[in-house]
Amino acid sequence: MKRIAILGSTGSIGRSALSVVDAHGDRLSVVGLAAGENAELLGEQIARYRPNTVAMASGEALDRLRAAGVKDAALTGTGRDGLVAVATAPDVDLVLCASSGTEALEAVLAAIEHRKTIALANKEVLVMAGGIVTEAARRHGVTILPVDSEHNAIHQCLHGRDASEIRRLVLTASGGPFRGRRATELLAVTAEEALRHPTWRMGRKITIDSATLMNKGLEVIEAHWLFGVRADQIDVVIHPQSVVHSMVELTDGSTIAQLGVTDMRLPIQYAFSYPARWAASLPSLDLVRAGRLDFAVPDTVAFPCLRLAYRALEADRSLPVVLNAANEVAVARFLEGRLSFPSIAEIIERTMNAHTPAQVASIDAVRAVDQWAREFSQEAARGVQLKA
Amino acid sequence: MKRIAILGSTGSIGRSALSVVDAHGDRLSVVGLAAGENAELLGEQIARYRPNTVAMASGEALDRLRAAGVKDAALTGTGRDGLVAVATAPDVDLVLCASSGTEALEAVLAAIEHRKTIALANKEVLVMAGGIVTEAARRHGVTILPVDSEHNAIHQCLHGRDASEIRRLVLTASGGPFRGRRATELLAVTAEEALRHPTWRMGRKITIDSATLMNKGLEVIEAHWLFGVRADQIDVVIHPQSVVHSMVELTDGSTIAQLGVTDMRLPIQYAFSYPARWAASLPSLDLVRAGRLDFAVPDTVAFPCLRLAYRALEADRSLPVVLNAANEVAVARFLEGRLSFPSIAEIIERTMNAHTPAQVASIDAVRAVDQWAREFSQEAARGVQLKA
Repeated sequence: MKRIAILGSTGSIGRSALSVVDAHGDRLSVVGLAAGENAELLGEQIARYRPNTVAMASGEALDRLRAAGVKDAALTGTGRDGLVAVATAPDVDLVLCASSGTEALEAVLAAIEHRKTIALANKEVLVMAGGIVTEAARRHGVTILPVDSEHNAIHQCLHGRDASEIRRLVLTASGGPFRGRRATELLAVTAEEALRHPTWRMGRKITIDSATLMNKGLEVIEAHWLFGVRADQIDVVIHPQSVVHSMVELTDGSTIAQLGVTDMRLPIQYAFSYPARWAASLPSLDLVRAGRLDFAVPDTVAFPCLRLAYRALEADRSLPVVLNAANEVAVARFLEGRLSFPSIAEIIERTMNAHTPAQVASIDAVRAVDQWAREFSQEAARGVQLKA
Repeated sequence: MKRIAILGSTGSIGRSALSVVDAHGDRLSVVGLAAGENAELLGEQIARYRPNTVAMASGEALDRLRAAGVKDAALTGTGRDGLVAVATAPDVDLVLCASSGTEALEAVLAAIEHRKTIALANKEVLVMAGGIVTEAARRHGVTILPVDSEHNAIHQCLHGRDASEIRRLVLTASGGPFRGRRATELLAVTAEEALRHPTWRMGRKITIDSATLMNKGLEVIEAHWLFGVRADQIDVVIHPQSVVHSMVELTDGSTIAQLGVTDMRLPIQYAFSYPARWAASLPSLDLVRAGRLDFAVPDTVAFPCLRLAYRALEADRSLPVVLNAANEVAVARFLEGRLSFPSIAEIIERTMNAHTPAQVASIDAVRAVDQWAREFSQEAARGVQLKA
């Protein structure tokens, strides 16, 4: 029986993870749950899975849980401390980090120090602190299993092969809802349009990141840390059908790819079952029904976020932190209807240009850069006229 | 230094294998060569690689080698005995079986008994005697590395995964030069047209087998023996671009595929380097340039050979031997212009229908069934009117 703590249990990945637990109740048990503000759903999850530790983002959220009749005994804490408490509880074998944003950074590091296996569905943790986190994992002999569809695909393709066998990683991107549009056609697009992703159902932030290609940019940075390859060894290819989830080209020129239906239960179950593989009732990939798969070069003129992410990775040090923080700020404003779609990249680039990259050797240093970038980009966003 | 014997060194695979040796002269040496009747080319190869043992199909061929000045010391023998002598010489680490047809059966078995690693580019060996050969390999702890592009792809996809993790194998087929044609449109096609394969350059027999889809049928039987899966776990999908070389669907629904350029040096080098992987100067696969990949169901009405191969595998025992022998006879007659394209399948099916499947526990039993099927199908072919 593998005992699992889920950070972000009420989100899209968290709910898929619980349905994987439902399908494998004889092999998985839920011992910890953490969520943001959705006390109603978390209350239902607690009633069903009876975890030993529970955390929420705020005291008010916890109060709502209490009001719904959840016993105090399991209510472990709030905010980052709450996440750390759930992630490091002694009964936890594996922590699924599926909370969005940067809140779980300390919790992931603490879980690594407590030698928990990490199933990582959160990009920001590695984008902000990839060096610190992977070094800690190496030191403590902890496995980080990527849950993101692309990195999970690469993990499956590598299947234990050494990084020295990698010539190149190829991350596939659906291209999002605006694939094929020119830069000038993107000025007037709305958040509602951007939220209509063609192949994957995901949370709001990541769906916008898919539309700007920043999601792929963050994945390039994440792949660098997870698989120990340089920026120039990571390519992105537009593949609208999202059937090929990613590929590894090996040193002899052979390419290994992972394909599947677009269902996050597949990579989540892989991370839960690893190194074993469990039979699942998920449908087979029907390539004949898919009929055809297309591949094209990404358009970094219309979608400059991907170029910005490569720039951040190549500069390394603190620049990825700036990229990520400015992106979060800009996407939030776009979702509020206060920023145009092309201005997302504009705000990020301005913030990056204003920053002098420096070493970030501690989480405190990361948080300080993150804070600066959030403030700078907020200010920059206020100065940008919304074009409608 | 890995010491290699090549059975079939003057054929298409044999010549590609020698170019792999050329590229990795610090890791590979050629200690044995066997060829059919092409004494001129074999003489050149001997001069260049200086093998310790050499065999040819006939005494006349050996005489031509002698006449060309090759020293007697290395000339080991002729026919099946010659192949056995080259394959079992004490200095051989790995035997590449790249001769076509059934001549190498005894040599492969003898090499296994001498604990040589087998790189198998010949389909007939496993189609005729899959049970005997794989059981011998198991008993002697010998690895059989498939060189055929499709099985090599599956071997790369599995990368040590257990057969119990396999839900399904998917063999890709280009569909050959007549893909999309109806049965009635195939009556008048010539050997010359059939020899124009769209994606792979291969020998004449295998190119015709590709056009009839028998090649894929033989591969289905081969896959059964190599990977320990049932006939109903092996699917064939038409993929005209030959970019995806084959796929494995695992029990959780995830599919792993191997992709690459259509160059046999890739799987040959894989077999020579295994379990290591060597950097190669082969070009990277450019999926963007490929642009699009298509997948479709094979047409077993126009191309019944694929259906016949499944029937032979499901009946097992001696029926695959009959299928293979009748196919060799029919293809030879088609190449001579003495049989129409659709009659190839007709002759095979008639021969299969005339045969009562029986156990074939020894090579002698296999040879006896093979002999019967050749005679029957020769006779049957004589009775078929050539429609032009």
